Amino acid sequence: MAEAAAGIEEPVRAPVTAASAGGILTLTLSSPPANALSIAVMRALKGALDRARDDAGVRVIVLRSSEKVFSAGHDLKELTAHRGDADRGRGFFETTMQLCAELMQAVVRHPKPVIAEVDGVATAAGCQLVASCDLAVASETARFATPGVNIGLFCSTPMVALSRNVARKHAMEMLLTGEMIDAETAHGMGLVNRVVPRDALNQTVAKLAQTIASKSSLTVKIGKEAFYAQAEMGLSQAYDYAARVMVENMLARDAEEGIGAFIEKRSPEWKDA
Amino acid sequence: MAEAAAGIEEPVRAPVTAASAGGILTLTLSSPPANALSIAVMRALKGALDRARDDAGVRVIVLRSSEKVFSAGHDLKELTAHRGDADRGRGFFETTMQLCAELMQAVVRHPKPVIAEVDGVATAAGCQLVASCDLAVASETARFATPGVNIGLFCSTPMVALSRNVARKHAMEMLLTGEMIDAETAHGMGLVNRVVPRDALNQTVAKLAQTIASKSSLTVKIGKEAFYAQAEMGLSQAYDYAARVMVENMLARDAEEGIGAFIEKRSPEWKDA
Amino acid sequence: MAEAAAGIEEPVRAPVTAASAGGILTLTLSSPPANALSIAVMRALKGALDRARDDAGVRVIVLRSSEKVFSAGHDLKELTAHRGDADRGRGFFETTMQLCAELMQAVVRHPKPVIAEVDGVATAAGCQLVASCDLAVASETARFATPGVNIGLFCSTPMVALSRNVARKHAMEMLLTGEMIDAETAHGMGLVNRVVPRDALNQTVAKLAQTIASKSSLTVKIGKEAFYAQAEMGLSQAYDYAARVMVENMLARDAEEGIGAFIEKRSPEWKDA
Repeated sequence: MAEAAAGIEEPVRAPVTAASAGGILTLTLSSPPANALSIAVMRALKGALDRARDDAGVRVIVLRSSEKVFSAGHDLKELTAHRGDADRGRGFFETTMQLCAELMQAVVRHPKPVIAEVDGVATAAGCQLVASCDLAVASETARFATPGVNIGLFCSTPMVALSRNVARKHAMEMLLTGEMIDAETAHGMGLVNRVVPRDALNQTVAKLAQTIASKSSLTVKIGKEAFYAQAEMGLSQAYDYAARVMVENMLARDAEEGIGAFIEKRSPEWKDA
Repeated sequence: MAEAAAGIEEPVRAPVTAASAGGILTLTLSSPPANALSIAVMRALKGALDRARDDAGVRVIVLRSSEKVFSAGHDLKELTAHRGDADRGRGFFETTMQLCAELMQAVVRHPKPVIAEVDGVATAAGCQLVASCDLAVASETARFATPGVNIGLFCSTPMVALSRNVARKHAMEMLLTGEMIDAETAHGMGLVNRVVPRDALNQTVAKLAQTIASKSSLTVKIGKEAFYAQAEMGLSQAYDYAARVMVENMLARDAEEGIGAFIEKRSPEWKDA
Repeated sequence: MAEAAAGIEEPVRAPVTAASAGGILTLTLSSPPANALSIAVMRALKGALDRARDDAGVRVIVLRSSEKVFSAGHDLKELTAHRGDADRGRGFFETTMQLCAELMQAVVRHPKPVIAEVDGVATAAGCQLVASCDLAVASETARFATPGVNIGLFCSTPMVALSRNVARKHAMEMLLTGEMIDAETAHGMGLVNRVVPRDALNQTVAKLAQTIASKSSLTVKIGKEAFYAQAEMGLSQAYDYAARVMVENMLARDAEEGIGAFIEKRSPEWKDA
């Protein structure tokens, strides 16, 4: 909460720009025309996420784009250029897919909530990025697809994130047809939390981010980590684990302050500890 | 089915009252003003569930509340009072969270279906209780939230149940914002089965409970247990397991009676065996 | 793609008929009046699926019925007839349930996408068959149920497929009440991808099948297999696995052709390799 009231804009590393204000770090994909996830873009984005991990001034992260295209996924020209390598590109493809998997998991494992703000098209690994975020808000003009099947490259890593967001048959339809779905359909499936008119997108995301930024960062961190951990467990194991998490959370200062404030009918003052 | 036609009302143990009629056990949370899940309430509810396990007169359980608040979750004053303990409350918090986890699993593992009848607010562990039930019917005025994040105590045990009911981003929005959702939104997410006008709630639940009470209790028990067991397995393992369950079910008297009655176009008479 | 333009109709083995055209194999359940899944029907269907596995002329499979009833599930008279066996039917029930589990998994594990075209009633193992398909399109008059509970035989194998398609409380309501749901409700739950007027059903499914048949079969095979495999893994393991799948997919000729064609703005020519 040591953030200046005014926005501090600083270049992280092109082609991702970072702006921070009020505990909200806004990362903007700025790689025209399609925000392709080249090695450089993925490294820049992962670098920005890594730096935000232990930055007490960052309480929530918003991921958006400066382009009409949120992100069209992998950089096909970059991938194709390596077909001439001695190993037919295998090494480079491995590097790319590994980095992509690390990037997506860096979003999921990040201690701060990440909100996707989607205005425009999010396809393939771009759609995966939206699915990997904790929350997503789309404008009415946003569209989504996993079109790899159209170019002979099934969206196999995107489906890891997609299939953990939407029902099986919905995921399969997107993956097998490669067709674009509109924002309302994506909302109905559970891929995005809200759909708003284009001119309300910024404000809706800002309000959502501010709401979450007003909570105890420690509490949010404990909860987000526990959420994805317990999701992979059986019921008994999940309850054993979550009960332990609750006890530790109860013993943290922010829970003492928050519960005390609630009982005393006053606003809590988080120490994030 | 040995139940008297008229309702038999008996106090189980305050603050949960029990009424049984027509094979339907109605457990009413009656702990004003917020049906907080204190140690006493959780023990009373778990005790009532435990007694109903082997009670042949109970075929279906309805869980409702006498208050406007279905349940607001843990008793924060009770928890806070133990901060003065020598261990800063750790022991008491462990007891509380462990009991809560046992209570929720007692609902899931119960051989009889449990239906939540929700009229009013269900928050935190109260929302978890609804999510843990096999079915839930809400009135139009019901509302749901996992607001622990507002008081520094993330709803980490509630999310175990919540995240097994609704899509990931829906769960995350409730957990990270702590905001209240209305009954219709809860319905769209899959947290409740039906939303009905307030004056139709009782009747809707009664009809649903009667429908299920008319089935073979043995069959329902076999099926409910298998449902949650197979949900945690991979596909091959789930099919191996479920196929074995089907064979044993086929060999039970109620399947012989039920299938026979179906073929002979008459009503079955369950022996619950 | 070696398929003749005109449809080739050939009897596979009664009571399932097969017709193939344009890479689309249409399997029609033709066992009046209810397309019960007797041993003979299950063997015929599984046989047809098995033959299609390595048939390069088959790119997509459509599963439909000639009857008003898509399928009413197991053949209860056949099952009941074996109650007189020395083992009270145990051996025959085991054979039936095992074969059913193999059939359903043959759909899921099939290298070609399987689309259910549902016009009429799909119940019990018939509903399971729809749930097991990768995609499903229903007419407005289609209806679905898992009514085993009504005859003392809980739909324990059907629920393996059902519960992997729809939210937990939706599945439980179908399983515990045994009641029929209409096509629109099934659509809202995620059990079917689309609901269309009856006279548009054929054409909708044909168009969907043609869309998928126009993709590289190898790519689709890689992707379908990976989809169900990763669905059973934790996130890290799923990403490790899917990243490896993507690398192998990139090195296949169809990805080289598809990505090349995309960059060169021309149509790809699949070699399915």
